[in-house]
Amino acid sequence: MTSLRDLGERRVIQIMEHSFGTDTRTIVGFGDDVAAVKLSDNKLAVLKTDMLVGSTDIPPGMSLKEAARKAVVANVSDLAAKGVRPIAGLVSLGLPSNLTKRDIQNIAAGLEGAAKEYRFPIVGGDTNESRDLTVSIALFALARRRQLVLRSSAKVGDIVAVTGEFGCASAGLRAILKQRIRRHSLPSKLAQAVYKPNAELELGIALAKCKALTASIDSSDGLALSLHELSQASDVGIEVTHVPVSKTARKYAMRYGYEANDLALYGGEEYHLVVTVKPNKFNIARRATHGKLITIGSVTSKFHGVRLRKVEGYSEIPMKGWEHFKS
Amino acid sequence: MTSLRDLGERRVIQIMEHSFGTDTRTIVGFGDDVAAVKLSDNKLAVLKTDMLVGSTDIPPGMSLKEAARKAVVANVSDLAAKGVRPIAGLVSLGLPSNLTKRDIQNIAAGLEGAAKEYRFPIVGGDTNESRDLTVSIALFALARRRQLVLRSSAKVGDIVAVTGEFGCASAGLRAILKQRIRRHSLPSKLAQAVYKPNAELELGIALAKCKALTASIDSSDGLALSLHELSQASDVGIEVTHVPVSKTARKYAMRYGYEANDLALYGGEEYHLVVTVKPNKFNIARRATHGKLITIGSVTSKFHGVRLRKVEGYSEIPMKGWEHFKS
Repeated sequence: MTSLRDLGERRVIQIMEHSFGTDTRTIVGFGDDVAAVKLSDNKLAVLKTDMLVGSTDIPPGMSLKEAARKAVVANVSDLAAKGVRPIAGLVSLGLPSNLTKRDIQNIAAGLEGAAKEYRFPIVGGDTNESRDLTVSIALFALARRRQLVLRSSAKVGDIVAVTGEFGCASAGLRAILKQRIRRHSLPSKLAQAVYKPNAELELGIALAKCKALTASIDSSDGLALSLHELSQASDVGIEVTHVPVSKTARKYAMRYGYEANDLALYGGEEYHLVVTVKPNKFNIARRATHGKLITIGSVTSKFHGVRLRKVEGYSEIPMKGWEHFKS
Repeated sequence: MTSLRDLGERRVIQIMEHSFGTDTRTIVGFGDDVAAVKLSDNKLAVLKTDMLVGSTDIPPGMSLKEAARKAVVANVSDLAAKGVRPIAGLVSLGLPSNLTKRDIQNIAAGLEGAAKEYRFPIVGGDTNESRDLTVSIALFALARRRQLVLRSSAKVGDIVAVTGEFGCASAGLRAILKQRIRRHSLPSKLAQAVYKPNAELELGIALAKCKALTASIDSSDGLALSLHELSQASDVGIEVTHVPVSKTARKYAMRYGYEANDLALYGGEEYHLVVTVKPNKFNIARRATHGKLITIGSVTSKFHGVRLRKVEGYSEIPMKGWEHFKS
């Protein structure tokens, strides 16, 4: 019998996807950051759900308020990647019976704070007793059909770019889990990346508005995995010429003997956007992000998959990262 | 410190509700079966989420396929009460790591089967590892503003009615949990009520269409609790003249020494609709349900709360039923 741990999250999603078939109204189904359903010729309902689970998604030192906030951030980040602003959210809670009233208030405060940050109301929900703390968020948005930036439309020749440097979340998690560094002793950038990550909603919306993108994905499963998802969904190769490692993560890697590139590529739990940009519109896109857009490579037909160009030739960037059940 | 078990589900929802505040676009928030957000002057997005948790919501003898189906039914039932058809669903799964590939396929089959029954596509989702099996469903629908039948608009003089007889789910659960009767030895009506409950979507839509209802709620937390919710939301009293106990539940009550009325009133996990009907449109409403509508009382200004009229006077129907954390 194959257990869940052998299967891995990707395979589980495939089983689901395979079972659920298709429907003529479904414009975007499984396999992108959000789902979208046709409402009229030009209008789509955009739907997203993502669940945070206490036993696997909450690092040591994170408060319930921060965990609840992070559950919202993970959902908003997927909408950000599509350039869509959330209109309303639902929250479904599974609560261990030993939680106190104060705990519940903290969870509520974390949810409400995050909803305020990203300016949408939480309009409904459900609470249940559960053995594992569970915060399941569902977001609803509207989009015009052509507004939605999918994973599947990257074109050969496009510039591949990201909206920020990578590695801090991964470095921070390793510091906490492997080096047993306490939260208050972490460099503030690492602590921020682990405990108070941000969804880049305004950047995502600005990028979608300037119509410079051909494809987009969020990077919550890691940069390498996100590049592979883009590559597969668009059926193109991605040539990486620059791994965007943050200075703080690089310092941490030096100190503890990690490969800095590995921290940036295979980390996960980071919420920058990974986009492909029309070359003639790159400057417009860069301006739209106030200069935050960093070129990391280009879309190519020379090969499939994702490769890093080095002086001595290419090296494969494997399709690995943070995956539930297998970690 | 007050623990979750002392607080009870209702209080937890109040804490959430209190934290989340209000928003001008939110037409229906916490406190009704669904939430609704204004899209245009006349159009609402209707949103619903409800979570099934393995350790508390799955009775002995229920398969994973049936549990997954039940998670969908519970969500659809709330839309049914509002007279709204689901357009699309999302599913967020928390899966214990010892589940097998076959288990996942069964969960997927249960979800897909239920979505087919109620004719909407499951368009997206998320999977996670969790210590407790969790099936969180979110449904999306559209409604015209006046179409939505709320809990809060029952009027004095209205007829209170239900779409079916109660008690089978409660009797079935007691038979399984107290009398330790095996599934295959249960009377088929009790087994059906526990393992394969139905959401009354077509009845709910037909009732909403004929514009005979003033208020409506589903009865998944029990008939008594649903009547109290209607009474409180509409600020009226409800006089019950007839407790609609099913024959099978009555037989079971006789045999094992239960009060038949208690099974019907305080059970829960039953999915009939509890509605208030304009007296002059009752016949239209009854026809719309093919005669299934059963009168159980009327809306009154004589008292607040919910009372049962007996020959010797009134007796209070207490606000109790099946509540998470306190059971």
